Amino acid sequence: MTQTTNTSTSNIVWHTHQIDKAVRGSNKGQVPRVLWLTGLSGSGKSTIANLLEQKLVAQDKHTYLLDGDNVRHGLCGDLGFSNKDRVENIRRISEVAKLFVDSGTIVITAFISPFTADRDYCREILEDGEFIEIFVDTPIEVCEARDPKGLYKKARSGDIPDFTGIDSEYQAPQSPEITLQYQDESAIDTAERLYQLLVAQGVV
Amino acid sequence: MTQTTNTSTSNIVWHTHQIDKAVRGSNKGQVPRVLWLTGLSGSGKSTIANLLEQKLVAQDKHTYLLDGDNVRHGLCGDLGFSNKDRVENIRRISEVAKLFVDSGTIVITAFISPFTADRDYCREILEDGEFIEIFVDTPIEVCEARDPKGLYKKARSGDIPDFTGIDSEYQAPQSPEITLQYQDESAIDTAERLYQLLVAQGVV
Repeated sequence: MTQTTNTSTSNIVWHTHQIDKAVRGSNKGQVPRVLWLTGLSGSGKSTIANLLEQKLVAQDKHTYLLDGDNVRHGLCGDLGFSNKDRVENIRRISEVAKLFVDSGTIVITAFISPFTADRDYCREILEDGEFIEIFVDTPIEVCEARDPKGLYKKARSGDIPDFTGIDSEYQAPQSPEITLQYQDESAIDTAERLYQLLVAQGVV
Repeated sequence: MTQTTNTSTSNIVWHTHQIDKAVRGSNKGQVPRVLWLTGLSGSGKSTIANLLEQKLVAQDKHTYLLDGDNVRHGLCGDLGFSNKDRVENIRRISEVAKLFVDSGTIVITAFISPFTADRDYCREILEDGEFIEIFVDTPIEVCEARDPKGLYKKARSGDIPDFTGIDSEYQAPQSPEITLQYQDESAIDTAERLYQLLVAQGVV
């Protein structure tokens, strides 16, 4: 296919400045952030993250949700579940989250992300205030009773080795921006409460 | 930090459907795409890509530009320039481009991306019509005369091995959506021409 010259019909003003994070965020009417949910399998990260995204979109925010569904088979499809691969998994997710922040987006992540150093990596590559660590602090007994994917059962029977909380460590955040209980309330009420906390802290 | 329960003050309607690509694109008033610029070093990819992004943003589009500046030190910082690493580099960029499309964004990429199979990989993981291959078809003599970063000089003197167009192959696209000459016109006129072509083809 060949192109035609068409500039003679153009009367468009060209910008002389590069498009950067500030411009992209401003055009979206928001300050870009990473809302990083961390917690055990079954803690409710994905459920809360999905509801939070719906809430933010209803408030005309521009969001994206990174979770196992959209990165494990694509960007991180070459990685397994060894500690080394888990570290690389979270590193890549952190770098992608940074790109989304650079695009002006509020990005929500929902990964167990059990290691403090990995979560801190994401905090460190972002600018101050951009990384919001949200600890979904559900006791393992509750997670195991929920066991939505039957993973705890498999882990207990030895079918899944290195399962976080069973035979692999979960390093709970020591000073997260938000600690969220998700136990006695409904998912919607919990997500609403998280949203109000984010508003109160000036995050969104 | 602890959270407070605040749902009693809430009167917000919760959406019951998941936020997906269609919703995100619709909220941005656009159809998400990957505008994939390919061409030799010095062909003008980055210059045209930057100007095109400015143009699209001026038209209230939501865009993101992926180029060496923002992926080579971050997401792909562990990769070198061997053929194997180059393939992995473009694979990751393709997967990230897909995530941005899923977020409703028009993503522009500016990489040499010399191998047909790698560009086709990105086309294949996207839906029909989302991948727009733009061949910046600048003759190597012109690229080498421009040599904005002095790379051709270094390649000719042997300081950079496996340099595309010198001692590493550039596989020109056989049926790109757009072939763009960038030789005799100014960069702005060329980017304007590209924009008009994208409009004419219903891409943006």
